[in-house]
Amino acid sequence: MNTVEQMRLFMEPRSVALVGATRATGLGSWNALEHLLSYGFSGKLYPVNPTAEEILGIKCYPSVKEIPGDIDLAVILTPSHQVPQLVKECTEKRIKAITVVGQGLADGDEEGKELQAEIVRVAREGGARIVGPNTFGTANAFINFNSAFTRMDMKKVPTGVICQTGLFISGLPEFPIVGKGIDLGNTCDIDFSDGLVYFEDDPEIKVILLYIEGLRDGRRFMEVARRVAKKKPIIALKTGRSEGAARATQSHTGNLAGRDEVYDAVFRQCGVIRVTAAEEFDDLSKAFLHLPLMKGRGVGIITITGGGGIMATEACARHNLDLAKLSPDSARKLDTLAPAWQNFENPADIWPPSIIAGHPLPGVLHATVETFLADDNVHGVMLIMPGTPSPYASILFKPVQLTTKFEKPTVLWCYGTEVEDTVSQIEKAGRIVYYPTMDRAANVLSRLNEYFEFLNRADER
Amino acid sequence: MNTVEQMRLFMEPRSVALVGATRATGLGSWNALEHLLSYGFSGKLYPVNPTAEEILGIKCYPSVKEIPGDIDLAVILTPSHQVPQLVKECTEKRIKAITVVGQGLADGDEEGKELQAEIVRVAREGGARIVGPNTFGTANAFINFNSAFTRMDMKKVPTGVICQTGLFISGLPEFPIVGKGIDLGNTCDIDFSDGLVYFEDDPEIKVILLYIEGLRDGRRFMEVARRVAKKKPIIALKTGRSEGAARATQSHTGNLAGRDEVYDAVFRQCGVIRVTAAEEFDDLSKAFLHLPLMKGRGVGIITITGGGGIMATEACARHNLDLAKLSPDSARKLDTLAPAWQNFENPADIWPPSIIAGHPLPGVLHATVETFLADDNVHGVMLIMPGTPSPYASILFKPVQLTTKFEKPTVLWCYGTEVEDTVSQIEKAGRIVYYPTMDRAANVLSRLNEYFEFLNRADER
Repeated sequence: MNTVEQMRLFMEPRSVALVGATRATGLGSWNALEHLLSYGFSGKLYPVNPTAEEILGIKCYPSVKEIPGDIDLAVILTPSHQVPQLVKECTEKRIKAITVVGQGLADGDEEGKELQAEIVRVAREGGARIVGPNTFGTANAFINFNSAFTRMDMKKVPTGVICQTGLFISGLPEFPIVGKGIDLGNTCDIDFSDGLVYFEDDPEIKVILLYIEGLRDGRRFMEVARRVAKKKPIIALKTGRSEGAARATQSHTGNLAGRDEVYDAVFRQCGVIRVTAAEEFDDLSKAFLHLPLMKGRGVGIITITGGGGIMATEACARHNLDLAKLSPDSARKLDTLAPAWQNFENPADIWPPSIIAGHPLPGVLHATVETFLADDNVHGVMLIMPGTPSPYASILFKPVQLTTKFEKPTVLWCYGTEVEDTVSQIEKAGRIVYYPTMDRAANVLSRLNEYFEFLNRADER
Repeated sequence: MNTVEQMRLFMEPRSVALVGATRATGLGSWNALEHLLSYGFSGKLYPVNPTAEEILGIKCYPSVKEIPGDIDLAVILTPSHQVPQLVKECTEKRIKAITVVGQGLADGDEEGKELQAEIVRVAREGGARIVGPNTFGTANAFINFNSAFTRMDMKKVPTGVICQTGLFISGLPEFPIVGKGIDLGNTCDIDFSDGLVYFEDDPEIKVILLYIEGLRDGRRFMEVARRVAKKKPIIALKTGRSEGAARATQSHTGNLAGRDEVYDAVFRQCGVIRVTAAEEFDDLSKAFLHLPLMKGRGVGIITITGGGGIMATEACARHNLDLAKLSPDSARKLDTLAPAWQNFENPADIWPPSIIAGHPLPGVLHATVETFLADDNVHGVMLIMPGTPSPYASILFKPVQLTTKFEKPTVLWCYGTEVEDTVSQIEKAGRIVYYPTMDRAANVLSRLNEYFEFLNRADER
């Protein structure tokens, strides 16, 4: 069985045994079966519990070995000391994919470490692979499958998550990042590389997100990541930079955080985009799914407030972007709109051309957006706009349509009141993504260029 | 007239002349009178327009000099070249406070600079002070007054803004930062120091926000800011760090950005909290209004996810906070809850004590929050919690009440779905503020300590 076939058992199971399924239901019962039923998973479900006849109307089995028919995936939900024996039974039933949920193994004490080693040994002998332990397991919104014992909201988004914490299987507030997800937990066996290979040619996944506490198989990771990164962006959040965090990592998944600068170098070489904070998963997922790459580091800033233009300029500088120097042609075009005294360049404050020179605001915005996007020195645009009441918003923001005609990314920041409505109007009008802070918007442009540069270098080799 | 009396004419006018009031109404007419009427401002309003009998049912005057009775504030809305003559008429009418809205003065070309100098000269000769030019003017939600010619939403919040951009008079999406506001624009006369003196003993204002492009009177600013900062926190966003931003500053308000490190030193000496991004106005306003100061740099992190605890630890390290080392007493208390293998310390992952050791989650949270807040080594707490459906949320988050019993700040980050409802439940349950990213939460704790340290140093002198 190759890696993709192996991973499909975890990610696209047609039959699942829930070993140690609880009879309790409702809040605080952590009943994985109950959640799976509520999602509408259409595969076969076999709860295993020697003390129950049935759970939630589903026939129960005293052992996996009594289950008729083949099992793609066993999810072992029992306390950890029972796991080696249960893994053994799974392998006797020829189950090849086993998720071990329990905690207190390599994430615990010496005894736990030994127990984890034993689990791996038993699985290997029986020809099975393990996800976990200390995990929610795997999730696939496209088939309404999620082995977590807490309720998850899933969406069929083209983002694949491979992580070592349940947090990212639970999603983030701004974007449901989990179309498909693998919580590797302590990562005793199935590793990041296996997940990457699975997502590599998966047509349902367009962006890959990694939350890494520690990598075991660095060499294989580099080989796989470099290959996959040429096909789809890989975004990695690797923790363990501070001493306190490195110590906490060992208690969390028993991983060694490793030397941070080594990870930096590895990611750079492989074209993996390294991020530092959770919200970057939100931000970059949206960016890579909706925006073209940025083919240089020149930003054009279009603003309705001079102060906003200055702050945006600083945010771009903080993310090592350049304020684009407009071509003489563009400068001439803009100049025809501005009052004589205005230096209407980049950042472009569209207010005086309207309020002083008398050009209607939507027209000024149209001309500026078009001039900027058509200028070879401008590789991406940041727009700073005010919350705008609805009837006027649809007129004012019509020029945003232009963003669909150029292969350059445009990002948006908004201020004032009614921001939510305004943002939804603008995002609908064109190919543009809103970010809640200017720094997050600038970071996105910078990363869209970072990935472009990697693909470029990769092409040249 | 002292500075406070002078500033009250701008901030609490009982009678306002709108010089150059437009007859046009509705969208795109920028009719300041129309907006003032809609806010319910109860002072007297006198539109001045030689071509109109009345505007929106309000009697119009051909000149300020024809207005019967005294005028506290004149807002001049005409094109800039008419301003010197109109300022002169205002002074002849003995008006002592004049807001000049027009653009293209020091923010424009040489001619504009000269025009601005002339305006100042005429005002001085007539004993009047000027806010602006290139401004929205002044705003005071407590009396429903706002001289801006665009519609503003105002709220009676205890934050006072002094800025050189209309952006911050318009407010920010997450928090309506303008209870009272002064847009200084080009700052030809009334300066930051005047605003600070006005807010100094204003019982309606508890936090002061400054957006600074350039300071003219550095010496007076230092003297005033140092005094005021001892009474209420002053938060300053000073732009002009990057070269592009410094250049844009000159086109925006004609200010020289100055040497950035000088500003750094000035702010530090005066106890002014310097920030770099707009969202920090949101974040720190909420913090200083709702949370106690942080009396040291030791953070306790309480989390329901190990990965979240690690990321929070890193966010705190990025903001130079220390992971608090718990007292032996606290450690013992926590230890009684944890499974034998768990290192239940700081960051405290409350999940294994519940799911493995069998203690109900709300009880574990209660014990952990109480132990952390009572520990002398913990000066502030960061809570990492999941979006939680409503009936369970009210049980789970009850321990948050404890935050009201200790003089230590607690901040919150949430993940997963239903975050909005969960946050509102938690914020209602105790004295705790949610931030949308861990870095913003950590920054807030750091700044609450920065201000505490300043007050401490100031006390010692």
